[in-house]
Parts: sequence; C-alpha cells; structure tokens
Amino acid sequence: MEDPASMSLLMDQFTRVSGYKVLVHGGGRTATTLADKLGIETNLVDGRRITCKEMLEVTTMVYGGLINKKIVAGLQARGCNALGLTGADINLISARKRPVMEIDYGYVGDIEDVNTRELRILLNENVVPVIASLTHDGKGNLLNTNADTIASELAAELSGYFEVFLFFCFEKKGVLKDPEDENSIIHEIDSETFNKYRERGIISTGMIPKLENGFRAKRNGVKEVLITNTKDMTNGWGTRLM
Amino acid sequence: MEDPASMSLLMDQFTRVSGYKVLVHGGGRTATTLADKLGIETNLVDGRRITCKEMLEVTTMVYGGLINKKIVAGLQARGCNALGLTGADINLISARKRPVMEIDYGYVGDIEDVNTRELRILLNENVVPVIASLTHDGKGNLLNTNADTIASELAAELSGYFEVFLFFCFEKKGVLKDPEDENSIIHEIDSETFNKYRERGIISTGMIPKLENGFRAKRNGVKEVLITNTKDMTNGWGTRLM
Repeated sequence: MEDPASMSLLMDQFTRVSGYKVLVHGGGRTATTLADKLGIETNLVDGRRITCKEMLEVTTMVYGGLINKKIVAGLQARGCNALGLTGADINLISARKRPVMEIDYGYVGDIEDVNTRELRILLNENVVPVIASLTHDGKGNLLNTNADTIASELAAELSGYFEVFLFFCFEKKGVLKDPEDENSIIHEIDSETFNKYRERGIISTGMIPKLENGFRAKRNGVKEVLITNTKDMTNGWGTRLM
Repeated sequence: MEDPASMSLLMDQFTRVSGYKVLVHGGGRTATTLADKLGIETNLVDGRRITCKEMLEVTTMVYGGLINKKIVAGLQARGCNALGLTGADINLISARKRPVMEIDYGYVGDIEDVNTRELRILLNENVVPVIASLTHDGKGNLLNTNADTIASELAAELSGYFEVFLFFCFEKKGVLKDPEDENSIIHEIDSETFNKYRERGIISTGMIPKLENGFRAKRNGVKEVLITNTKDMTNGWGTRLM
C-alpha cells in the first residue's frame, strides 16, 4: 500500500476483480515514518503496534486519511465508485479496548460486532467500500485494529449474504516453507497441516495470524481464502486454504 | 472544530438538529499545527491556503483523517449514524485544480460537479454524512477546497430534492457591524445591504466569502441561510440572509 508503484498496481488489479468487492488496508510503515518525524516512538510486539494516544492520532491520520483517501481517489480515477470507511463510519465495526494483561497495547480494539446493514445497501448500489484498519468503541473513541482481522471478520459476516472470496495480499507469493525461497510456496493447506507445520516451526511467525484469521473465516462460511500477492491476485495463484 | 470542548459542544448541538442533516468541516488550525511540526511552511492568501504537495498530504491527514474520524466516532457515541466523506468518496464533489493566475494556489480545487445520488440514498437510510473539505479531480488527485464553498454548493444541489437550511457556524455570533463588538450583530441582511456594507468597508474581509457563498446558495434554492455560532445554532439566532 505504501510504495506508489505497488499501490498503483494494487488499484489496477483490484479494479479488475469482478462482482461486489471490499478493500481492507492498513498502513503501518507510513504510520511509523510519520511517527518518527513527529518524535513519537513506535513499539511493536509480535508485529502488533502498541498504540498510545499520540500513536492513535498518527494511525487515524495515516490509515483513515492519507492512505484511505489516496486509494479512494485512485479507484475513482479507474471508474470504481470507492467509498472510504473506518469501523466508526456507519457503525461498521465496534470493538472494545483490549484488556491489559501482560502487555498494555493501548488504544487497540478487539472486534465485538460487525454491522453490515448500510454496507450491503452500498454494495447493492455498486459502491466499493475501502476500509481503513480502525474500529470504534461506541463511546467516541477510535481504536487500532489489525487489517487482516478486520478483513476476515467482515468476510465471515458478509458470507451470510453473499458468496465471499477472501484474498490476503502481501509481499510474498503465498505461504512459503522456506521464507527465503519464493519457490517453496505451499499451494494448498488445511488446518491440520497448518498445525503440524506450525509445531515444527516451518511457518514463519508473521504468517501465523494471517492463517489463523483465514481458517476462522473459512469455518465461518467464507467460500475461498487465498494468501497471495498483488501481482497474482487476479490469477488465483498463491496459497489456498482448504 | 479544533478545541475539544467546542468540538464536543458542536456534536451535542448537531445531534439535536432534527431531520436529515449533513456536516461539512475543515480543520485549518490543526493542519497548520501539524505542518509546523513537520517543518512545512503555511502560506495563506486572503485566508486561502496555498497547497503544495506536502501540505495536501497534511490536509488529507488532518481533514480527511483526524478531524473527520473524531467527529464520526463522537457522533456515533451520540446515537447519530455518521459517515465520514471527502469529495472523492462516492464521487461526491469533483473539482478542477485552480488555474494559475496571479497566485498559484497549488492543489486547490474549484468545484465543477456535485453528485448527490449515493448521498441521498444514505440520507434516506438516516445516515449522517460528515464531509471533510477535500475534493478530487477524477484523475486520482485530491484537492483542497474551502469548507464554506462545499457547504453552499452541496446545499444548493440538495435543494433540488429537499428543503434545505444552511448554517455557517463560526466563532462570532453572526455578522457584526463592528468585529470587536458582539452586540453589533446584524440580524437580517439582504444582498443589497451586503453590497452597500461591503463598499463602505463595514463587513470584515473574512466574512465576505461566507456571505457570498450564502447568497449564492439562497439564489440556488436553499430555503434559509444562517450565519451563527455553535451555541446559538439550535435557537436560530445569528445573521439571517434575506
């Protein structure tokens, strides 16, 4: 999302996807760059951002403003009637601030409810929702929420109304047996194999939440889950969850 | 919009407004503060922001992200089903980059078209649009556009479908004969008196675009235009355009 050339490729590819569609995005690298410039320290635990009040403002500006609106304007230029949203807009995703256990994640939200009533009206009008990875607590506070989690929860909820295909796009071609070797891609994986691979340490830590989210989405009615990259998404190449 | 107490008051008051409603906002002061922190120089000509590429990113983050989403989350907490938008979202407001004459305003857009098709569907679903003062050129670029101008053009366009009341909320109680004296408020003004006052220098420069926008909106079908402040908006106090 954060390099102009790959953002442009993503928008081209996304425009080609047929049927109703929704795009969910984050923007962590840009948030880190802006935070650095503003002298706000970035702390990540297992890839999850510790979100102090100042960092929440940064992510609100970057995810909800800069990146979201760039994508919306870019999709509009491609004839795609995009509408940028966060979980607060049309009360799409409510969450509660993650309880402090070993780690205080700060303003991070765990999803409690996904309300797609207005979203479905918009989809039926051929509007293309573009969702930034922010939720709200219903008490006036925005919360940071992982984009992969939002994508899977939303996909699961929408599968009550539509046949849903969920694509996770990232830098690699799919789930790799050897993170250094793009040819070691696993074409199909079921949850049993996933658990085996995970125990043996074959799957890299960063991939685990994506796969867990993907398998949960499948269990909750999503028709197909593919972990892929931007170039390959329209070909259906990548790692298919079985 | 930019001080927490007055933002909270505005949201309380806005929630009380009955009927379908739309909120249009800017966020110039916060944009200036953020630009300062990032070492980006703010240049205003007659209150209009010269918008270089970096400043456009700042306003996109501040208007479209930070302020817009704070208002949306705040209104949701008040039971108001808010949806944040810019002119790029659902192709609401297209504009063209202002041609360079004496001054190069940079990424500033003059409105060309207001499309309320999807907006009206949303209003009919009791969604409350919250619009940040940004437009787009349809070629993938966002543009900075004055919030008062957006409000009046949108009000005029919507008056083809609804009975529209347009409220300009600002710091003063209304249009003042003496900017230093809050009691010198002009309760009613018609365009003839406005022109007379303007010629005599009675109306302060900052008020002129607001009044011009207001009179244009009235000519274009808006039922009532009131220049008021947040405290008084629900009472109908302020300067009424005749």
